[in-house]
Amino acid sequence: MLTGHQTWKFPIPPVILSTATVVGPDEGEGPLVNDFDIVHGDLMLGQDSWEKAERVLLEESTKLAVENAGLTNGDIQCFVAGDLMNQIISATFAARTLSVPYLGVFGACSTSMESLAIASLLVSSGAANHALAATSSHNCTVEKQFRYPTEYGSQKPPTAQYTVTGSGAAVLGREGRGPRVTSATIGRVVDMGITDPFNMGAAMAPAAVDTIEAHLRDLNIEPGYYDMIVTGDLATVGYSIANELFEKHRIPMHQTNYYDCGLLVYDVNTQDVQAGGSGCACSAVVTYGHLLKKIKSGEMDRLLVVATGALLSPLSFQQGENIPCIAHAVAIESGRRG
Amino acid sequence: MLTGHQTWKFPIPPVILSTATVVGPDEGEGPLVNDFDIVHGDLMLGQDSWEKAERVLLEESTKLAVENAGLTNGDIQCFVAGDLMNQIISATFAARTLSVPYLGVFGACSTSMESLAIASLLVSSGAANHALAATSSHNCTVEKQFRYPTEYGSQKPPTAQYTVTGSGAAVLGREGRGPRVTSATIGRVVDMGITDPFNMGAAMAPAAVDTIEAHLRDLNIEPGYYDMIVTGDLATVGYSIANELFEKHRIPMHQTNYYDCGLLVYDVNTQDVQAGGSGCACSAVVTYGHLLKKIKSGEMDRLLVVATGALLSPLSFQQGENIPCIAHAVAIESGRRG
Repeated sequence: MLTGHQTWKFPIPPVILSTATVVGPDEGEGPLVNDFDIVHGDLMLGQDSWEKAERVLLEESTKLAVENAGLTNGDIQCFVAGDLMNQIISATFAARTLSVPYLGVFGACSTSMESLAIASLLVSSGAANHALAATSSHNCTVEKQFRYPTEYGSQKPPTAQYTVTGSGAAVLGREGRGPRVTSATIGRVVDMGITDPFNMGAAMAPAAVDTIEAHLRDLNIEPGYYDMIVTGDLATVGYSIANELFEKHRIPMHQTNYYDCGLLVYDVNTQDVQAGGSGCACSAVVTYGHLLKKIKSGEMDRLLVVATGALLSPLSFQQGENIPCIAHAVAIESGRRG
Repeated sequence: MLTGHQTWKFPIPPVILSTATVVGPDEGEGPLVNDFDIVHGDLMLGQDSWEKAERVLLEESTKLAVENAGLTNGDIQCFVAGDLMNQIISATFAARTLSVPYLGVFGACSTSMESLAIASLLVSSGAANHALAATSSHNCTVEKQFRYPTEYGSQKPPTAQYTVTGSGAAVLGREGRGPRVTSATIGRVVDMGITDPFNMGAAMAPAAVDTIEAHLRDLNIEPGYYDMIVTGDLATVGYSIANELFEKHRIPMHQTNYYDCGLLVYDVNTQDVQAGGSGCACSAVVTYGHLLKKIKSGEMDRLLVVATGALLSPLSFQQGENIPCIAHAVAIESGRRG
């Protein structure tokens, strides 16, 4: 299983039996609207708090993913999930609703691929026949918790990112038809001394590059092995820094198509989203909604998703700490090639 | 690997190559003082904030555990850790210091066994040759975050629990001498409608019983299989409720020695700790410090640790939510018997 120092190459690659994505109004106005299963027209989802609305996003995506796989909750041996809220309450309350064994995880916005990697390990190792990986984020819960009261409407610098309102879930199984998770690279914490929470793309880019470098080295492959490599939520500033770092580290990314989920989920030229999308749901809804459809349709065969996370807390920021970052990579392949 | 619905029975049981425990002054005045590796005389540890002090606890325990195993950080393929702080910053900053691949997890006080279970799965499945599991808590960081500013010195009801200041870490390997992790049962979220954060033992007891019941059913064993079963941090109120529930559910716990780490770590009769200990570090330091010594010395052979977690956040409590709870169980055996 362990290949190189930080990569798991799954001897029995788990099958992604189904996925489901739920998003809010801004994502519904973005270019990927047709790739999402449920698009909500308002941010409250009929709830009396944003936190409850976020929980509903996660409850909807997990319910739908289990249904789409033709399964019931009783077939799921483990729910692996996390989110950005203090004590990951969205995931916990969704786990209460699902009533299945639950592993809570936290990797900030890298949670999407951390949960998918762990769920894949569970299934590949035989610790679960079916595992459910999911994450969520909500623009207003995150603004309120990490920045200023949302009602202030405080101005933001153009380097800031816009948290995706949404949730993505995937059901993994040992057998069946569908794209397979072939490997996962677990990231290290990278801290380049950045302390500005309004410029998280710059903080996260080096972590993404560190993990991509480790992934390629561990598996002894080049970027061209993949039809596409996407980072999680670097947005314009981080994407440009990542490209500079690839050049500096002589990683031949020109061999592949390199995108960032934070730039795919919104139209940064016409939508008021500053540098682009972020949040746990950003890479989750883009991967589970948009990119997996491209694999299923035959448009591509090999995808590497490198979800990035800024591991700050409001308190660590207030106490003057740097923003430590991490990135976890998961490879998803159609199996049509090799 | 999967046995029954929620238990992993490790075909290659990972070896606990080493552990390390670090505690604060109150734990140093408790009955287990001689079982801990480092006992700090003050709560600040020479730092300028309690959060930094907590981080030092975790940095010390992980450093010592790696050294005690005769390894270096480069030998560790994965650090699995979490804590009670918002966005688990103690674990993140310790991961930055260690500079090894890192999976952040959150299960409130069940994090001790959640991290040990996942680290065991990594080693048993071959995803890591060596994995490091750890957690921490600090009385003052928790009081400040979950209850009232610590300086208030607000009075507490006798059902309240006293958060352990400490950290416990364990290094797991595929080969070597030492106790082995033989199985792990992943808990479900159990919510009995309790909303009082000053009575978490009562909220957590049903989760502990649910997981113990699942563990025994999945492995088709009786409590007498174990020389000892310990819950994580139910303290006096929760311990008594758990005993009532065992009786009600006809679980013959009289066959074994049933204790609670929250009642072992302090002398509740002489120390001013209300109902007893709690916090991620409670079950971690009692297990890694006290109980493993009993296994190594031959005093016992089979131990089941059932770490309990109250998955509330300050916000979920303020919004009137119940306290959802969870418990994860890990079996540790000497291998001397069967």
